[in-house]
Amino acid sequence: MFENKENRTELSSLGEFGLIDHLASFVELKNSESVKGIGDDAAVINNEGDATVVSTDMLVEGVHFDLTFQPLKHLGFKAVAVNLSDIYAMNAIPKQIVVAVALSNRFSLEAIEELYEGIQMACDKYSVDLVGGDTTTSTAGLVISITAIGRAKKEDIVYRSGANVGDLICVSGDLGGAYVGLQLLEREKRIFLENPKIQPDLSNADYILERQLKPEPRRDIIEKLKQAKVHPTSMIDVSDGLSSEVMHLCKQSGTGCTLYEDKFPIDPQTFEKAREFHLDPTVCALSGGEDYELLFTIKQDDYEKIRMHLDISIVGHMVAKEEGLHLVDKSGNQVKLEAQGWKAF
Amino acid sequence: MFENKENRTELSSLGEFGLIDHLASFVELKNSESVKGIGDDAAVINNEGDATVVSTDMLVEGVHFDLTFQPLKHLGFKAVAVNLSDIYAMNAIPKQIVVAVALSNRFSLEAIEELYEGIQMACDKYSVDLVGGDTTTSTAGLVISITAIGRAKKEDIVYRSGANVGDLICVSGDLGGAYVGLQLLEREKRIFLENPKIQPDLSNADYILERQLKPEPRRDIIEKLKQAKVHPTSMIDVSDGLSSEVMHLCKQSGTGCTLYEDKFPIDPQTFEKAREFHLDPTVCALSGGEDYELLFTIKQDDYEKIRMHLDISIVGHMVAKEEGLHLVDKSGNQVKLEAQGWKAF
Repeated sequence: MFENKENRTELSSLGEFGLIDHLASFVELKNSESVKGIGDDAAVINNEGDATVVSTDMLVEGVHFDLTFQPLKHLGFKAVAVNLSDIYAMNAIPKQIVVAVALSNRFSLEAIEELYEGIQMACDKYSVDLVGGDTTTSTAGLVISITAIGRAKKEDIVYRSGANVGDLICVSGDLGGAYVGLQLLEREKRIFLENPKIQPDLSNADYILERQLKPEPRRDIIEKLKQAKVHPTSMIDVSDGLSSEVMHLCKQSGTGCTLYEDKFPIDPQTFEKAREFHLDPTVCALSGGEDYELLFTIKQDDYEKIRMHLDISIVGHMVAKEEGLHLVDKSGNQVKLEAQGWKAF
Repeated sequence: MFENKENRTELSSLGEFGLIDHLASFVELKNSESVKGIGDDAAVINNEGDATVVSTDMLVEGVHFDLTFQPLKHLGFKAVAVNLSDIYAMNAIPKQIVVAVALSNRFSLEAIEELYEGIQMACDKYSVDLVGGDTTTSTAGLVISITAIGRAKKEDIVYRSGANVGDLICVSGDLGGAYVGLQLLEREKRIFLENPKIQPDLSNADYILERQLKPEPRRDIIEKLKQAKVHPTSMIDVSDGLSSEVMHLCKQSGTGCTLYEDKFPIDPQTFEKAREFHLDPTVCALSGGEDYELLFTIKQDDYEKIRMHLDISIVGHMVAKEEGLHLVDKSGNQVKLEAQGWKAF
């Protein structure tokens, strides 16, 4: 105690994924019920019969959200939504959440009620029970940590590791909107701080603002795939951007991939506003993050079953590991995919 | 957005338990598998056959721990221990944990490794698997949020609400040590900050320091009660002090209680060091907190089965609700028990 450490490796030298891999190397599973530990969207626990699927996420004020433009009710909704998204990404159904919140006396009861109203709204919408939690003091900002618990038949669970060469790479909804929405909010905040008399200009941006402030996890996609009798071979949710997520699928499945820029689903509003910010919409889709769409692979034989589903786009296919990870751009040039996920440190 | 709230109720006007009750009133369970939600040490989820028991706790730097005297390895161990304690307090066996950590770049990789070594030590000792988590950035201090998942046969689970009039009130181990240990650490920190050349005087205090820095959840008590075929009627772990915990049991069981000061288990070192700080050892036991012992009630008929168990003390009995909650002090005076749990706000 009362000592300083000599030996020091900066966390920035590892990055978030490096740190997770490093910490995971210490971990060894002991209980036969622990089917899957670190390394997917959620852990899988076998309870004889159905499996339990568990995922946790922590949101920190000033890092993951900014209360100047994020209403607390939306924040509560989003905090639940991002956790449920992880459970859906295992092809499981979320059933319960526990919520731990640290807050300072800067927050009034009314403020906390708003936060919990948002949490409850998400619980109602996705038929999830809030079954426990912890409420404690923070010395500075607000911290929200949610653990979601879901259920699935063991044989229904979809891991990141099941993709095969030739599988089609699919993504739900559209990409890049949440990131462009954040750029808009941050610009208007800067203007507001410089001159509080100027009203924020958020016109013609409803869609991208909602993508940023109140994302909806894709339960509907899970349900539709089930109805269509399509069992994805691998799946992950898009929290850090398409590029980072497809790399996870390839790494864990032992494959490479080819993505086609002209197949990327980008909403017209995302496209237009990205241009306004001199951003490349494709880069927003690849590296923006926070879209909470589902990225998954299917067997080529299943193509006909989902072909007419307007809210699923086929953006590429899996290739042999040795062929590497590439993007074919609109000019037909093949460029190497680079990791550009959200950098935590 | 960009707005201020007019209406404001200070959180301090409710206190932690008031806030929890208030927030719980918004919550309604929808899934039949959610057997027990907010309001006990852990939630209970029915998975056909065995039940799943879930508990979550958040530790915030500067509120729950002080890294000047808490080694990170001990902190990791303690963060797990306090969660497992909640699972044992349901008479369940912890099986998995997920760990979310927010940290700033003030921490090096070596520091985080120490933290996770402590987490892993606790996992190894209690045969628990770390199955997932989240690692993210913090703008200021370290925040650790752990969710523990346990299993139990449904009929074995012990709630806070099952005590009856006449039941004996039992507590494991001894009380007040963790609080007195904290007083000692804080005194030595003050001295050290005033004059860094003075070495901390922590002699003859090993036991209370360990109680504060590295508490051990009482799996052994759960196992021994099972062997002795004693099924507690109600149970809770002592995190906020005996007074606060016995109030929870009485409130949820609809009883009153009488505690006897001369029956309180207090270690000689706790007693001696408390006196050194001009603290009443009884008050430390009643209101100190962080002992992580088990407080439980048993039927009078079970008395013979645990009578010879040296690590369980009978400290009182349940009475009718109308008789209220009282402490009989060493002079034989009956005084009303007051809520003096840890105040979060």
